[in-house]
Amino acid sequence: MSDHQKNGQSVFEEIFGHARANEIKQTLQALSPDLARIGIDFPFGEFYAKDDLLDLKSRELITLSTLITQGTLPQLKIHIEAALHVGCTPIQIEQTILQLTIYVGMPKVINAMKVFKEVLAEQQAAT
Amino acid sequence: MSDHQKNGQSVFEEIFGHARANEIKQTLQALSPDLARIGIDFPFGEFYAKDDLLDLKSRELITLSTLITQGTLPQLKIHIEAALHVGCTPIQIEQTILQLTIYVGMPKVINAMKVFKEVLAEQQAAT
Amino acid sequence: MSDHQKNGQSVFEEIFGHARANEIKQTLQALSPDLARIGIDFPFGEFYAKDDLLDLKSRELITLSTLITQGTLPQLKIHIEAALHVGCTPIQIEQTILQLTIYVGMPKVINAMKVFKEVLAEQQAAT
Amino acid sequence: MSDHQKNGQSVFEEIFGHARANEIKQTLQALSPDLARIGIDFPFGEFYAKDDLLDLKSRELITLSTLITQGTLPQLKIHIEAALHVGCTPIQIEQTILQLTIYVGMPKVINAMKVFKEVLAEQQAAT
Amino acid sequence: MSDHQKNGQSVFEEIFGHARANEIKQTLQALSPDLARIGIDFPFGEFYAKDDLLDLKSRELITLSTLITQGTLPQLKIHIEAALHVGCTPIQIEQTILQLTIYVGMPKVINAMKVFKEVLAEQQAAT
Amino acid sequence: MSDHQKNGQSVFEEIFGHARANEIKQTLQALSPDLARIGIDFPFGEFYAKDDLLDLKSRELITLSTLITQGTLPQLKIHIEAALHVGCTPIQIEQTILQLTIYVGMPKVINAMKVFKEVLAEQQAAT
Repeated sequence: MSDHQKNGQSVFEEIFGHARANEIKQTLQALSPDLARIGIDFPFGEFYAKDDLLDLKSRELITLSTLITQGTLPQLKIHIEAALHVGCTPIQIEQTILQLTIYVGMPKVINAMKVFKEVLAEQQAAT
Repeated sequence: MSDHQKNGQSVFEEIFGHARANEIKQTLQALSPDLARIGIDFPFGEFYAKDDLLDLKSRELITLSTLITQGTLPQLKIHIEAALHVGCTPIQIEQTILQLTIYVGMPKVINAMKVFKEVLAEQQAAT
Repeated sequence: MSDHQKNGQSVFEEIFGHARANEIKQTLQALSPDLARIGIDFPFGEFYAKDDLLDLKSRELITLSTLITQGTLPQLKIHIEAALHVGCTPIQIEQTILQLTIYVGMPKVINAMKVFKEVLAEQQAAT
Repeated sequence: MSDHQKNGQSVFEEIFGHARANEIKQTLQALSPDLARIGIDFPFGEFYAKDDLLDLKSRELITLSTLITQGTLPQLKIHIEAALHVGCTPIQIEQTILQLTIYVGMPKVINAMKVFKEVLAEQQAAT
Repeated sequence: MSDHQKNGQSVFEEIFGHARANEIKQTLQALSPDLARIGIDFPFGEFYAKDDLLDLKSRELITLSTLITQGTLPQLKIHIEAALHVGCTPIQIEQTILQLTIYVGMPKVINAMKVFKEVLAEQQAAT
Repeated sequence: MSDHQKNGQSVFEEIFGHARANEIKQTLQALSPDLARIGIDFPFGEFYAKDDLLDLKSRELITLSTLITQGTLPQLKIHIEAALHVGCTPIQIEQTILQLTIYVGMPKVINAMKVFKEVLAEQQAAT
């Protein structure tokens, strides 16, 4: 096992950007300090930190795929933002959503596409 | 929309290799000719064919993610083979499985890891 | 394999009615032209078109069953409208929802029944 | 609410046939007498018994749809037998499975089709 | 099998409290009288009534676990209220939610924690 | 947050017993050293270790509930063993399975009951 020194908190900031990472952390903190600690240190320190073994763009597309399959839309929204922030293009994200038609069916794909378009619209409005 | 001329059957062969693609096609044919036609022409002609928009390695990792989330192990096995065939490394596939711990939980991750190790063992035995 | 000439678009209109079909198509178009094309041509041209092999009423009840099981409520609403439009009675739809209690449990059945009653209320208000 | 006098046990026999119903009942009894009582009296007395409100063929196709969506294959096998016993044709069952491609994806559809072909093969072998 | 005389309706009131039980019953009645009858008499008369075999606190934690896993949030809210009413502490409920991180992943756990905090806030506001 | 000093490995042994814990650890190690580390240290050190906040019997019933809901039968088997080891009675486990009928439906309940009876039979054979 390789020696990954990266801290979960710093990987979390790298993926979401400083401002957005802070917002998400505060929301989790308000819900439950345990959840904020577990939900950031563990996944980002243990998995995403190993970007030498699998790059962050691939990691985010993999995360989008499981979130679309589960239909957990609030988290899908946050990870579409993360995917764009680490450099996935809108076309790559759209292709990810479309490909899932054959694996999870149209209903979940349509619901995911709505979330994706909302994120794009929000980012355009913010520019 | 771009002009994708690639035929589903040829993309299917590119992804699985000629011999394995034939085996899978015959299994599907024996089950249902309609299923073989739909299950190859549609996904591979419509989605995987657009490898200029999203490369095949990324597409296979996305597919692994949804199959692990659903727990459909026979298809997971076939797509682990496909992922290796299009050039994903065993480390990238293992990282994909491990990362899902935080999104789908340990039980599905353990079951997926078993399938992954079976594929590696089969391929080593065949060498 | 039989020779089904029916076009997906025309079957789609037959099932939803001209006005509602147009609305749904425009919503899908606005989300993603690819999604609109795939989501109408493929399922309605490939599956629903074969109403000689399985009638549209049965096809819609089957669709309601999978949507209730998945808990994808926006699509459930649209297909309850479709089921009523192709001639399923409100009693048949209610029986479909109730029967699923023993297969998917009360929570998904209650959530589906709410959607069903909303559709009935909207249609009564529109009369 | 209508007055449904039919007993769950008799509806259960009507759907599976006397011999097969007995086998299934004994399997459930051996697992848990409570489960056998709940699993037959409740669904067959409360839901399937109301075949005046929704006929048994439609009820079985609805059940196949939820079982395919859930991927619970042992129960899918039993209800494919039931569907055939109450008069659904093999073509109607195949169409039900195929249509679900667009709602649950190929993996679950392929796994369901395998079970369906096993049932057909068993019944041909028994003739 | 033991002789459980308790009536589903009275167990339902015991678990939710008189006022809340009435509200839920009226909501179900308005949706569908059949659903209200089935959804109260059956689960509360058949399962929860056997509190000598498994106590109500354990039964409610078990129910929270399945509802979090399914992501059926409206029912989760009602059963968090029930869990508190039968004497589960907020700490026990929070531990139940947190433990599921490793079995269902963070997204469903975060969504469940939001619902839990809403219930706590509502109950504090009502005091 | 309380100060939980218990080590994940020791909690893991406490729950499964020394011999069975070793077997499971070796199986996980053979699959993936990362998985063995993550899958024992994290859940047993972070969640099960806090048995002062929620006792181990309740924690195991909660785990059974999510595993039955997901249909992940190999893990269900292991946690039925764990539930018995920490002192849940066979009746409490059977009641847990039966109660889920109304939340996840009969198919998953029947499949879970089969696993439960297998464990009981294995333990009787070993005596």
